[in-house]
Parts: sequence; C-alpha cells; structure tokens
Amino acid sequence: MISTDICIIGAGPVGLFAVFEAGLLKMRCHLMDALPQVGGQLSEIYPHKPIYDIPGYPTVKAQELVDNLLDQIDPFKPTFTLGERVEQITRQEDQSFIVTTNEHTKVHCKVIVIAGGLGCFEPRKPTIERLEDFEGRGVAYMVKNPELFRNKQVVLAGGGDSALDWTIFLSEVAEKVTLVHRGDTFRGAPDSAEKVFNLAKEGKINLLLKSNVVRIGGNGHLKEVFIADQANEVTALEADHLIPLFGLSPKLGPIAEWGLNIDKSAIVVNTEDYSTNVPGIYAIGDINTYPGKLKLILCGFHEAALMCHSAFKFVYPDQRLSFKYTTVNGVNAF
Amino acid sequence: MISTDICIIGAGPVGLFAVFEAGLLKMRCHLMDALPQVGGQLSEIYPHKPIYDIPGYPTVKAQELVDNLLDQIDPFKPTFTLGERVEQITRQEDQSFIVTTNEHTKVHCKVIVIAGGLGCFEPRKPTIERLEDFEGRGVAYMVKNPELFRNKQVVLAGGGDSALDWTIFLSEVAEKVTLVHRGDTFRGAPDSAEKVFNLAKEGKINLLLKSNVVRIGGNGHLKEVFIADQANEVTALEADHLIPLFGLSPKLGPIAEWGLNIDKSAIVVNTEDYSTNVPGIYAIGDINTYPGKLKLILCGFHEAALMCHSAFKFVYPDQRLSFKYTTVNGVNAF
Repeated sequence: MISTDICIIGAGPVGLFAVFEAGLLKMRCHLMDALPQVGGQLSEIYPHKPIYDIPGYPTVKAQELVDNLLDQIDPFKPTFTLGERVEQITRQEDQSFIVTTNEHTKVHCKVIVIAGGLGCFEPRKPTIERLEDFEGRGVAYMVKNPELFRNKQVVLAGGGDSALDWTIFLSEVAEKVTLVHRGDTFRGAPDSAEKVFNLAKEGKINLLLKSNVVRIGGNGHLKEVFIADQANEVTALEADHLIPLFGLSPKLGPIAEWGLNIDKSAIVVNTEDYSTNVPGIYAIGDINTYPGKLKLILCGFHEAALMCHSAFKFVYPDQRLSFKYTTVNGVNAF
Repeated sequence: MISTDICIIGAGPVGLFAVFEAGLLKMRCHLMDALPQVGGQLSEIYPHKPIYDIPGYPTVKAQELVDNLLDQIDPFKPTFTLGERVEQITRQEDQSFIVTTNEHTKVHCKVIVIAGGLGCFEPRKPTIERLEDFEGRGVAYMVKNPELFRNKQVVLAGGGDSALDWTIFLSEVAEKVTLVHRGDTFRGAPDSAEKVFNLAKEGKINLLLKSNVVRIGGNGHLKEVFIADQANEVTALEADHLIPLFGLSPKLGPIAEWGLNIDKSAIVVNTEDYSTNVPGIYAIGDINTYPGKLKLILCGFHEAALMCHSAFKFVYPDQRLSFKYTTVNGVNAF
C-alpha cells in the first residue's frame, strides 16, 4: 500500500501546485488522476492553447504551464497513480484514510485533497451498438499503454487532436492503423492533419473520411468493425482494437458518494481553509464552491496555499507552524 | 483632474495584476504609489532576489516578475501617479471618490482599491541633528528625479544596494559624489560594490568608509555636511544635497484615518469579495486581513480577481457581468 501525508485527487494545475505548498510545510503528497497524464484539462483538452490570465505570464501555453509546475514541485518528490479512477475512500479508526481506485490501488493518507477540476473526465462514447460489451475487450477510450497495440490491427475514430496524434504515433507501433472520421477536414492542429494525410498517401495508414463506425462484432473480444461511408455502404474491417476519441465530458463521478456537501455538482467549502464538511477532506480548484467563487486557475493556487496551512494543523495539532518565505533560503531549505 | 473607474493605491505586484482583472471586465485603472517606481517591495527592496513561490515559476527574480506583470497589463493601458503619497479620500454626493496626494494631485474614481502592501514605505532616517529642518531643502530620502543633482555636490550615506546604485548612477551626473558608509564592506550586490571601489580608485567619487554623517548645516538650504571618521575626527564637506539611504520601514500612514476597520495594522475585509466596511473601497494583498490570511503574493492575485467582479457590480449595478475565459479569444477581445 502507498503511504503519504496528503493524497491529492486530481493532478491538474491546482493539484500540482498544492504539492509545492505542502512541501514548504514538509508534508509529502501522492497525486491520483483518472487521466493517464498530469495536467488535467490543460494537458488533455488544450495543451497548445495560450492562457493569458496566469499572473506574471502575459501568455503561456497550457502544457508549458504544466511543465513549469512539474519543475516547481520536483524538489518535493511527489508520487503518482495515473490512469486510475478513485472509487472509494474509507476512514480508519485513527482518522486516517484509505483511498482505493477502480484498479484496486490503495493509498493510505492523513489528509485528502480533492482537486478534481470539473470532475472525472469521462469519454464521450459514440452511439455504436454493443459498444459497452466490448469495453476492455478491444474497445478503449484512451491510450494508457501504447505497447498494448504493438503488431495489432487498430481502428481509431475521431477528428480532433487526440485522434490525429494517436494515429501518427500508432502508425509506427501497430500492424495496421485505420482512422475513421465523419468529416473530410480535421479540427486538430493543421500540422498534425497534414502528417496524417501524408501517412495515408504513403500507404502507412488507412484513412476513411466521411465515414462512421456503425457496428462492431466479435466473440468475447473485438474482431470486426463495420464502417459506413458517405453513400451509407457498409464495409467490414478486421480489427483487434477500436479506439473512439470523441473528447471527454466532465462528471462528478464517485465523489458524489463520499458524504460531502454538494451544491450544483461542486463541493461546498469553508473559505477560511477550503475544508469540506468532512474533517480531513479539503476541496480546491474548480470542483469547489463558496460565495464569490470564480473558476480560475489562479484562485485554485490561493486555495491550495490556505488549505495546506490548515492541513498541517490537522495532521500535527501539537506542532507550531513556522511560516517562512522562500525568498530567504529558496526551496531547498524546506 | 485624472478620472478613472478604479483608483488602485499601491503599485506592487498585486495592484498591477488588479489592472488585468479589471481590464477583462472593461474597467480602467489608475495606479498610485508613494514610491517613485512600480513594483512595491519587489522593486524597492529585493529586485535581484529570486522568488520561488509564484505558481508556474520554479524561480523568478523579483524585478522580472514585475516586468512580466507590466507586459501583462499593457493591453489595458493603466495610468500612474508615482512618488506621491495618497493623503486624503473624499466621498462625493454621487458616491464616487476624489483621491488627493501630498502633492495635490487629484484622481476622481468610482472605486478605490487599497493594494498597499505593508503600508507606506517610509525612509529610515539616521539620527542627524537638524536633519528634518533640511528636508526638501537639500535632504532627500529617495531619488525621484536624478536631473535635480546635475552639476551639484552630492553626499550619499548608506551601504546597501540603493546607496551603491545611486552612487554609480550619480557619478555620471553630479559634479561631485561622496559616499559615506559606516562599515568597510557593503551589504549590496558584490558587483555594484566592486564598481564603487573602482570609481573611488579612479578618483571619480569620494568614498569615506568607517565614517558617519554627524551634523549638517546651511542657511535655508543645505551647504555643509560634517563627517566623523573612525577616530571620531570630524571634517566639513561642502554639499548641495544629502541623500541618506538606510532602507524603508512600512507604516500604515494616512490609510488609518479613512474610517476603515483596522486590525493590527491591516484592513479587515470580507472574503467574498475583499470589500472593506466602506462601500466602494476594497483592500487586497498584504494590507488586508481575514480568517486564514497568508501574506503571499499569490493570495493577492486571487483577491484581485474576486474584488474586480464585485467592483464591476458596484459600478454597474444594472449590467449583467459576462464572464469569459481568456483562453478562447485572448486579451484583445476584452
């Protein structure tokens, strides 16, 4: 079992920065996220988009901000469980918690911080008959381990950056890659779209435009994908894997079951320290709500700082908190 | 008279960032500061020191952060009154305010935001007999306009960065520059100290170490400075100006007289919007206090954001506030 001071659920920018503030108080953190990488929405939805409202950055690309936050927290050596969804939290007799994921990973911690953004990002599923029967049996909505697809026949569906990026990447890994897209132009980066068109021209991938996956088949595991073209003519394709990439939509998910006060899909917190109604559980960033709340990353940073000072008192009720400015000795003094 | 939506008293990092948040809501700002430059403590006290706790910056020099904030607010064209101390605020019949400085500059505004940091920075005055008699008559504690010293005989006193930097600068401007320092090494940047020693060696300045200014004289205007050396031997020096640079110490100053609720030299605010007890006056950054308050720049940034949304409703009670993310259209859309 993993053991830590603070278990942070959600590894977006606010969850990442909380590691820094906790580190200054000598508390160690473990970060968990349902997405396979850190950065939350910034990395998953708009990595290349510029952000203008981070104080001190006239402009910064979303992924660059995430990378800088990772550098900033590196001295405090956070640990991670990614690509797994937290399902359950259980209180122990000594008031500590055990956090359990859908893949049965367990984390023991003294404090839980929910930095879950808009909630769990759940994949948008296309309406394909029997799709859910094949989930985990050939159908996956995100690529967690590309090696799974080595020398396999893979069908991807979608027209955004994820579909383009994974088509390009898997063209080097899989035996055969087919990309199915209902349009004939792509929403993703023009540069990636050009690469995909070139791969198709060179015969390295199979590109089916103005087409849709309409049915799938197999016996226990996916074996066939049926694709309808513009004229509604349906062709069967042999396939070991189907990866529909139609974006993610946020859901509060299991968090709703943890006994927290919820108001309109957000967790109600106290503005003194961003604590929830459950002692030892805090909520910071877009997932919380309070009078005056603005869903801005910079507000989450502030919430992380105040939360950590309160968490310190919760974990060490008898210790005096000595508040030092980093300007004096840098972060290595902590 | 200057006219603006929001008059921000204090042009430190938090005051500067407030211009950005106000700008997103199409409110214009005028910034005022008793210091002759923007940046507050960062620029005045530790411009070259690295800061480690600005989110997204593993490290940033204080002055670099100020420069980046200036770039970030540039699209919103803030205006400035620097080197003047706000003395008085007067409420008008229509609930707007007139802000008046010690030099009689007047600013008309709908909202006042006090972003005064630790308060007015007042110069630490050395104990020299009759010093205050010559203030404004040859004695100055900060350099607002270096041209004032062109072809004059100037004595500086102090051993920190300000004393070194102004000695170097004025050596090119004044007829004669003397630097008096009680020690024989300097607290300021080693590079600046080396420059000063070289200027002395080249005969371009007069450097008096292990010495103190003990007395001054003149008739209506400064004419003589008396300097005691290590052996307590006193020499008279002809001088038009004496600039004692012994740092600044924070004072709440006139703010204490404006009818605001004050607790331990800080202004009590509501955490919903960082408003004070006086409608239309807000306080953000180190100068305010509330339960859980941490004196961190990043907290001031958050306070600035929430304050601006409240100020908008105060100024335009009948308008609907449409909250847009900058990521969609950049700042030029605002």
